Amino acid sequence: MNSDLVRVANFGAGPSALPLSVLEEAQKGLIDFNGTGIGIAEISHRSKEFQAFVDQFEQNIRTQLDVPSTHRILFTQGGGTAQFSAVVLNLLARHRLLHPNATPEETTLDYVVTGSWSKKAAEEARRIAAGHGTVRTVVDARVYSKDGKSFDNIPPHAEFQFSPAPALIYYCENETVDGVEFAHDAASPASFPFDRLQPAGALVPLVADYSSSFMCRPIPRLADHAVIYAGAQKNIGPAGLTILIVREDCIVDVDTAAKLGATPVPLILSYKVLADSKSLYNTPSVFAIYVAGLVLERMKRHGGLAHYEAVNKRKAEKVYAAIEEGEQKGVFRRKVQQGSESWMNAVFEVLGEDAEKKFLEGAEKDGMKGLKGHRSVGGIRVSLYNAITEEEVDKLVAFMTQFIEDLKAV
Amino acid sequence: MNSDLVRVANFGAGPSALPLSVLEEAQKGLIDFNGTGIGIAEISHRSKEFQAFVDQFEQNIRTQLDVPSTHRILFTQGGGTAQFSAVVLNLLARHRLLHPNATPEETTLDYVVTGSWSKKAAEEARRIAAGHGTVRTVVDARVYSKDGKSFDNIPPHAEFQFSPAPALIYYCENETVDGVEFAHDAASPASFPFDRLQPAGALVPLVADYSSSFMCRPIPRLADHAVIYAGAQKNIGPAGLTILIVREDCIVDVDTAAKLGATPVPLILSYKVLADSKSLYNTPSVFAIYVAGLVLERMKRHGGLAHYEAVNKRKAEKVYAAIEEGEQKGVFRRKVQQGSESWMNAVFEVLGEDAEKKFLEGAEKDGMKGLKGHRSVGGIRVSLYNAITEEEVDKLVAFMTQFIEDLKAV
Repeated sequence: MNSDLVRVANFGAGPSALPLSVLEEAQKGLIDFNGTGIGIAEISHRSKEFQAFVDQFEQNIRTQLDVPSTHRILFTQGGGTAQFSAVVLNLLARHRLLHPNATPEETTLDYVVTGSWSKKAAEEARRIAAGHGTVRTVVDARVYSKDGKSFDNIPPHAEFQFSPAPALIYYCENETVDGVEFAHDAASPASFPFDRLQPAGALVPLVADYSSSFMCRPIPRLADHAVIYAGAQKNIGPAGLTILIVREDCIVDVDTAAKLGATPVPLILSYKVLADSKSLYNTPSVFAIYVAGLVLERMKRHGGLAHYEAVNKRKAEKVYAAIEEGEQKGVFRRKVQQGSESWMNAVFEVLGEDAEKKFLEGAEKDGMKGLKGHRSVGGIRVSLYNAITEEEVDKLVAFMTQFIEDLKAV
Repeated sequence: MNSDLVRVANFGAGPSALPLSVLEEAQKGLIDFNGTGIGIAEISHRSKEFQAFVDQFEQNIRTQLDVPSTHRILFTQGGGTAQFSAVVLNLLARHRLLHPNATPEETTLDYVVTGSWSKKAAEEARRIAAGHGTVRTVVDARVYSKDGKSFDNIPPHAEFQFSPAPALIYYCENETVDGVEFAHDAASPASFPFDRLQPAGALVPLVADYSSSFMCRPIPRLADHAVIYAGAQKNIGPAGLTILIVREDCIVDVDTAAKLGATPVPLILSYKVLADSKSLYNTPSVFAIYVAGLVLERMKRHGGLAHYEAVNKRKAEKVYAAIEEGEQKGVFRRKVQQGSESWMNAVFEVLGEDAEKKFLEGAEKDGMKGLKGHRSVGGIRVSLYNAITEEEVDKLVAFMTQFIEDLKAV
């Protein structure tokens, strides 16, 4: 096929690029899934062929991320937004079962707010938990920002003030809009302060939104998390699939909790319903699971997470070096403080009137799309998910370097 | 392409068959969506190209089903199961705004139970509405069944006992598991008794689950419905997309209702959030929308709903004639009472030891799959969704006729 001839480099923030070889395999699967004579968009989710595929997909996630047997891997729909509500409902139910007489004031929900998505998650928690629990902001990164109002950093460890026994502790590992991410090196001041969690060593209800950094590198201290979730549409597949990693103690009988006063949990948001049905309570997003499964198989063939971590590190370093060069020469302005930069979404501003427009038009002319920053913050955003190749990054960096030279000269 | 060579006739109940020409078009779209150089599984849901596609998709539904301007067409995820909860939450919020002081006893939710799916919907309503409303069974079809325990009929009009001013009235137009469907001819005793709705002529909160009969023929008295919903994965697309048709008065400010005591509605289940964002609050199931959009375009080219209604009628008549013949000759037993048979899911039993197994194996040998009845009821189920061709039905009927002859002769 000459499929790659028509294709542009897609640096969009999500839905985002997928490997061409996977798309070509999916083309065949659309007509005939694994020799069944039925296409993947048509086959029963209860067919033995699809169930075997899902089992293998789950196993690949478990192996590559080293998910311990204490945690279930579940598949659902509705993206991060559905999980904003689901984690609150399921973990309030868990808390109700553990503390049947806790007052709403005693029932705290701790939110770490480091960007647009964790801010939204906290707002949804306030809606859903109203009358049942108290949403606390553990830390608000804007307080530590350069301009006093932007999300441009991960605050210092000492500033994280967790409750003694919260119903949940929430953070967003990578902020897709703001380009801020927790460092994975535990020694970095921008890493997540696991050691401050209370009570130390217990089954802390720690929730992480990994939507835009899932499967780009290993997850630090995965086993210490209660719930990790991610939409597939960044690193591993099309939109329509959400992956959950849930510790067994967080899969609770929500109906018993409701009898004790907790809010009833809609079937589709109940972790217990998902777990009891092996993620097949109702029809899942079969095609999205299929493509994500193909992506995971490809990752395995290409050396697994260690390989992707090394490549993704190089890709990010190249782009940040170009941003730095632009800043030195007065053409770009970096937006995120040092140490808190995202590997997946590098954001910066292009200085000067109409310069951003010129940057975007020039990039598109050279076959590179999706570089416009989120509408709420503007600027440029370069998303560097797994399917973005080093060649594509090199091409972008060459364009950036030339752009800097041209503008510097003016 | 020789794609059709490998393909079998897929009579599965859902996910189910799609037109080969649509799948071939989707193959191209996977690599390059409408000349963007980006595949449909990779493109931003906020790109102008995809938004134009969604607008056209919505317009096609509106035109073909003749949806009046009083009703919004919305797209979401989570299938019928998500809507089991969503309709209860949204319509309880609406009722709370209309009747701020109504007690749970005064707040009735009327369920018409004619099969496995409406039974499940009523069970979910009991969970979700607990403490806020009272779920009533308007009629239970099992009472009118031949064996006193099966869902095999639509009960007579006189038996539908609606509340005076319920928060919602719920029915499932076609019961996919049981093969029972409301007749579309208003003169039939198995039609929905619209004229018994109270208060007559007012904005009755009538909810219909059209999951397995959406877009197979026109919807009777569509404008009289408050909410109609359907999963795409039967007649028009892959799993992962739910289509909603919601009357404006049912898109309510759920947060104000919550302040008056209603249960908070998770963002993903709020009709107001969907409507305010034109169904793009968060990332939708882009690929499923795309394929469903292609199917609707194809329907338009082929003569629209009138054409499909005529073809589907012939398909159903042929299959029921074969079932009738089998019953006459003691080989099959029909399961559904006359007048209540589904156009989309024809169910019957094969009599005699191992005969069902023989039927299924014989059909599969002849390239026909998906004929096994739902695991909860057994028997044979022939699903006759739009993508099933008359040629495929003729082939199945020929097989059934031969099967009857063979078994009769034994």
